Amino acid sequence: MRLVSYEYNGQAGVGVMAGDDGIVELSTAAPGMPGSLREILESVDGWFDKIAAAVDGKAPDRILAEVELLPVIPEPQATWCVALNYQTHKDETGLDRSAYPEMFLRMPISVVGHGQSLVRPRESMAERYDFEGELAAVIGKPGRYIPESEAFEYIAGYSCYNEGSVRDYQSHNRQFGLGKTFEKSGSFGPWMMTQDEFGDPYQQSIITRLNGKEKQNSSINLILTRIEGIIAYLSEGYTLQPGDVVVTGTPGSIPGTTKRMEPGDVCEVEITGLGTLSNPIIAAE
Amino acid sequence: MRLVSYEYNGQAGVGVMAGDDGIVELSTAAPGMPGSLREILESVDGWFDKIAAAVDGKAPDRILAEVELLPVIPEPQATWCVALNYQTHKDETGLDRSAYPEMFLRMPISVVGHGQSLVRPRESMAERYDFEGELAAVIGKPGRYIPESEAFEYIAGYSCYNEGSVRDYQSHNRQFGLGKTFEKSGSFGPWMMTQDEFGDPYQQSIITRLNGKEKQNSSINLILTRIEGIIAYLSEGYTLQPGDVVVTGTPGSIPGTTKRMEPGDVCEVEITGLGTLSNPIIAAE
Repeated sequence: MRLVSYEYNGQAGVGVMAGDDGIVELSTAAPGMPGSLREILESVDGWFDKIAAAVDGKAPDRILAEVELLPVIPEPQATWCVALNYQTHKDETGLDRSAYPEMFLRMPISVVGHGQSLVRPRESMAERYDFEGELAAVIGKPGRYIPESEAFEYIAGYSCYNEGSVRDYQSHNRQFGLGKTFEKSGSFGPWMMTQDEFGDPYQQSIITRLNGKEKQNSSINLILTRIEGIIAYLSEGYTLQPGDVVVTGTPGSIPGTTKRMEPGDVCEVEITGLGTLSNPIIAAE
Repeated sequence: MRLVSYEYNGQAGVGVMAGDDGIVELSTAAPGMPGSLREILESVDGWFDKIAAAVDGKAPDRILAEVELLPVIPEPQATWCVALNYQTHKDETGLDRSAYPEMFLRMPISVVGHGQSLVRPRESMAERYDFEGELAAVIGKPGRYIPESEAFEYIAGYSCYNEGSVRDYQSHNRQFGLGKTFEKSGSFGPWMMTQDEFGDPYQQSIITRLNGKEKQNSSINLILTRIEGIIAYLSEGYTLQPGDVVVTGTPGSIPGTTKRMEPGDVCEVEITGLGTLSNPIIAAE
């Protein structure tokens, strides 16, 4: 099942994809459901079975072209990202990696949905604005002190993520801080594919293209701290919350290329077996 | 005016303090207002005058003892903190400071209200859990590219903050990550005092006490990157949102003392002219 968060006629909604471009709206198929995916994950026991039953055999209410897709979870309690989590990316940065996953947070306002514009910061402020194609996992139920062997039980589904980074600000000091969370610098979508449908993430690849040209292509199996390890680590610190987003790290670029994005470019992050997140880049006002 | 967020009989509310311990509930005094302080700041034009008029001359509906105070903004879009922002704290850490404020984010779930328990992580996981008494500013209206000279116009009010820190995790690598955002490791309250009433923050002091004993005592005027500078810096990266929290840094401890908190302790963060945030510390289960 592929779940989307969208806006139609100024109203936010949640829907289920039908085929390539149909959307069955939960507001009509399951009118008792809360109006956001985060609230559904938080408050509807057995949300998967209930939604699957509600949309079964329903014709689409909308097509993708008539709605505006939002980030899969528009306002998560937390979006955790991990630095230096593929050897190829670690090598290209020249940075050291500790024994622990290097985690940082992004703000909701830094993220747009599929098709929405990413904003390159003003040139007077930042020289370098980079894509980072990544796999994101969405937490489906609360959990603390989660052993790695049980981590997958806490994942509702997966999505593509462009963890767009403003390198100038990122290197102002030790904390990545603002550099990882400029307004509309990242994207998250197009949908959350539920775990049953996506299957084993380590069988899949991340492919990033800029203006159609391949820039990253890596098996997810080359990840350093595995998804289970990131989830176990985070759950040492707090009770993971439904709708929390875990962005699992970016591979290196194809040798000889850079990650830079400029106004006029279109950046695509494909996760094989899941879908493609595409965003045009515009200049900040 | 001092605004509180609280829970009474399982219902969240916003109120205005009357005297030492009275609360005028906005749900009765101003029934048209949204039910959270963040939503009020986001959506009510002229919220200050409207609330002031609505509570004028009203007798308190509740006393502090019968409600549970929540963090002043229970779920902000962002809580930004700044590292190494007093020379005395920089000196005690031995860390270098860059020309830019060193910013990091906290999650909502890491923060409790006045009187609620702070949770010391399991001893098997963390040796050192420290208080950090700080002044927090709450953003009152959206703003981008804010010049320092106008920064105060974007502040709705101020509060005390205990920016509780789990040092073991904080030093796992360069990012403070989880170490600054363990579940219920920090506190924010007791209220937001509006700017008109608090006046010039640089005339006030931060005093932290553990079990009644003074542990920090510093004029806020000794801050390194001033409040205006932090706000201007953040607004380079995004449009500050109503309800966003800017936690402005902690001074050093009184020489010869530590910042450690252990179960059974009570930690108080007083900002002179504003109030005192007090929390008992309990052990994690």
